[in-house]
Amino acid sequence: MQHQPKLSPADHVELDRLFAELQASRQSFAGYPCNADFDYTPLFRFLAFPINNVGDPFMASNYHLNTQRFEREVLETYGQMVHAPPGKIWGYVTNGGTEGNLYGIYLAREVYPEGIVYYSEDTHYSVSKVLRMLHVRNVMIRSQPDGRMDLEDLRESLKIHRDVPPIVFANIGTTMKGAVDDLAGINDILRNLAIKEYYIHADAALSGMILPFVDDPPPFDFRAGINSISVSGHKMIGAPIPCGIVMARKELVDRISRNIEYIGTMDTTVSGSRNGITPLFLWYQFRAFGREGFRARIDACLRVAAYAVEQFQAMGVPAWRHPHSITVVFPRPPMDFIQHWQLAVQHESAHIITMPHVTTAMVDRICGDLRSKIS
Amino acid sequence: MQHQPKLSPADHVELDRLFAELQASRQSFAGYPCNADFDYTPLFRFLAFPINNVGDPFMASNYHLNTQRFEREVLETYGQMVHAPPGKIWGYVTNGGTEGNLYGIYLAREVYPEGIVYYSEDTHYSVSKVLRMLHVRNVMIRSQPDGRMDLEDLRESLKIHRDVPPIVFANIGTTMKGAVDDLAGINDILRNLAIKEYYIHADAALSGMILPFVDDPPPFDFRAGINSISVSGHKMIGAPIPCGIVMARKELVDRISRNIEYIGTMDTTVSGSRNGITPLFLWYQFRAFGREGFRARIDACLRVAAYAVEQFQAMGVPAWRHPHSITVVFPRPPMDFIQHWQLAVQHESAHIITMPHVTTAMVDRICGDLRSKIS
Repeated sequence: MQHQPKLSPADHVELDRLFAELQASRQSFAGYPCNADFDYTPLFRFLAFPINNVGDPFMASNYHLNTQRFEREVLETYGQMVHAPPGKIWGYVTNGGTEGNLYGIYLAREVYPEGIVYYSEDTHYSVSKVLRMLHVRNVMIRSQPDGRMDLEDLRESLKIHRDVPPIVFANIGTTMKGAVDDLAGINDILRNLAIKEYYIHADAALSGMILPFVDDPPPFDFRAGINSISVSGHKMIGAPIPCGIVMARKELVDRISRNIEYIGTMDTTVSGSRNGITPLFLWYQFRAFGREGFRARIDACLRVAAYAVEQFQAMGVPAWRHPHSITVVFPRPPMDFIQHWQLAVQHESAHIITMPHVTTAMVDRICGDLRSKIS
Repeated sequence: MQHQPKLSPADHVELDRLFAELQASRQSFAGYPCNADFDYTPLFRFLAFPINNVGDPFMASNYHLNTQRFEREVLETYGQMVHAPPGKIWGYVTNGGTEGNLYGIYLAREVYPEGIVYYSEDTHYSVSKVLRMLHVRNVMIRSQPDGRMDLEDLRESLKIHRDVPPIVFANIGTTMKGAVDDLAGINDILRNLAIKEYYIHADAALSGMILPFVDDPPPFDFRAGINSISVSGHKMIGAPIPCGIVMARKELVDRISRNIEYIGTMDTTVSGSRNGITPLFLWYQFRAFGREGFRARIDACLRVAAYAVEQFQAMGVPAWRHPHSITVVFPRPPMDFIQHWQLAVQHESAHIITMPHVTTAMVDRICGDLRSKIS
């Protein structure tokens, strides 16, 4: 092995500056659904290898430096959380929510090449890019003020195109307001219109790791008739690298897989060469927390969210949140406040998201700061 | 901040087993173009943050935990290596070659929605998946036995479709044989047929970090009239996570960018949330090695490749390689040999690739092993 050359002292100064900036930024990181509370130190030693989970996680490849056995365990564990019918679901660890949604819509299009995607106007901004990339027919559906898909508008739109299989893109927690589209209502409409051929994809980026741990969640998983689901790993689970899990019904997936001699496996994922570290991160958290650990963690986040709503309202700011949601929505604050707290804003709304690193103490600082701004 | 729970002793045993397997596998890792010789230990501390280079690397976003300034420097450095006209090229750090090629073909399709992609039969297997995802018309062109695109077949195919802008997908180093498609010849054909509207994408996964450092390389970069290029980061540069760089002419890119209020930046990349660690890895290697360091490293790899060809030939195995290529091609060996050395095979060919971790000592072991197998 050759020798790794050293960085110059000036370059180390540059890295130290980045480190200090990141430390400072984390103190006021309240607006995005990314958990900053994790410690993967025991896994750093694996970054010494060119790990690559190339191809299908369920098939051995000629590339031995992989973590696919851990990836499969992640899929099995998450499959249980979302009631995947055992043995009937396939999936893989993605580079994030966009890849998961891209995969889901791609699969739906391959199953129904003429299908029309229906998605609400509160859908994540990346989805319109994905629809454009995939050349899929699509109709945007009106949202209700609380962020959920307007089912009357969906019904009317479906009626017009009853000759074409619908591909319903359901938000399980919208980006801005944490709204969960009403899957029971959507299924009712499909039944009512006697539509037998359809596909439902669930974008469960954040809430896909919240709803499995609350009492009486709304329908959101495979029990609700979805065909595929995408959840992020760097959101509720937490990771220094964007990642996620996508899962889909196996009998659909088999239609688009293709055997590749070069790697001795199937080219069934969107990426070919695939990150093998992030599956280890997810495995680590699943093992370390366990279901009860996640339940406790999510309880705590929901309590902080409730506390934040109270504190905002106590000073006259009309904050609100959906049940089982840690997304606290309030009217758009001044620009310097948005900048400092790295808030996500859209139109007249802003939100904070009480991820595990957002404590009541941070909420107090946020509220104190806002009070001084608006008084 | 909450507390990170610990793993059980049994789980640590499981991780130790993986570590030992990876160490063992690295000893016989000779068939894939992934460099196993790197040490990013000084960067591990950055894995404490939920870094996310969301959106466009050239615009500030509301998400402050990013490494976009380092990403821009990586792009500038690589831009110089491939003679990107200063200020006229845009790009970003991808999750690997597939994303880079997806981006390039997507951009080409947006520029020429009716365009036809021409690509040789030696093109990487992921490209046909990308073409299918993007719904692009495409024609596969015959390859010559040495792996280069057959320009006679290209000329004939272009002639038939002179009314449609061609999108030429050029291999700058094919996956299996390291062949570089003849860009000068391709440009001649386009000129000859008076085709003014065309797009050339260069898939320079491995050779994109070799050819900038050899004397008299064949035309391969922006000087040869390409519109976009994709290079891998986990190949010649080396990284524990698949990554890459894609670059394209800015005036084309501007057509497909879209401003997104939620993140306060432009949604110009394929992924939305983006890995912020891999740009640091690439920055680190560019800074630590410098151009001269890379030149020396690539010289060494080419010498090992020449040595491997000699050693194979000395025992009667008709091995060969292209000039400036570290891909040593030889007839397909027995299955257990393929498995042990993690060889990539296709039809009747196999190859080893003399990446920086493949030493003459490893070549000797490979040849000794093969000698015992065939005698």
